[in-house]
Amino acid sequence: MAIEIYNANINIFLKPTVNDPQGITVKSALQSLGFFLENVRVGKFIEISLEANSREHAYEIAIDMCEKLLANTIIEKYTVNIDE
Amino acid sequence: MAIEIYNANINIFLKPTVNDPQGITVKSALQSLGFFLENVRVGKFIEISLEANSREHAYEIAIDMCEKLLANTIIEKYTVNIDE
Repeated sequence: MAIEIYNANINIFLKPTVNDPQGITVKSALQSLGFFLENVRVGKFIEISLEANSREHAYEIAIDMCEKLLANTIIEKYTVNIDE
Repeated sequence: MAIEIYNANINIFLKPTVNDPQGITVKSALQSLGFFLENVRVGKFIEISLEANSREHAYEIAIDMCEKLLANTIIEKYTVNIDE
């Protein structure tokens, strides 16, 4: 199969039980601007153009990248989306 | 209309013309682990539970939050998604 470039969108965020000081700070900043909100969680968004044989293969590679480097799976979770 | 809680997922990322040193570092780290990739861009992912009258209203509020605080619109772009 031909190697193609796929675009993976990865969101990495802290697990709900983990304290998120950045989110707390953003929450109070938004509230002081007059917004009404319950909760804010701040995470990372990583966009990767990677080489793969197929869409499924690209998905597997992106998961592998998260497990090996991008996410700290003890305190973080992630979602992977491959663009069409 | 009744006030309800909506969940807004906001991705904030650097414009394509802006240099992204964090992305370059992640790219070389992934390459040294043996992955084949073209490009990496690192941004922020913010999840906000906010109070709004409707889904459309929640979307407008989230855009307003991005413009006023969350994104630096000179160098960054953002996307907003409201969960069903």
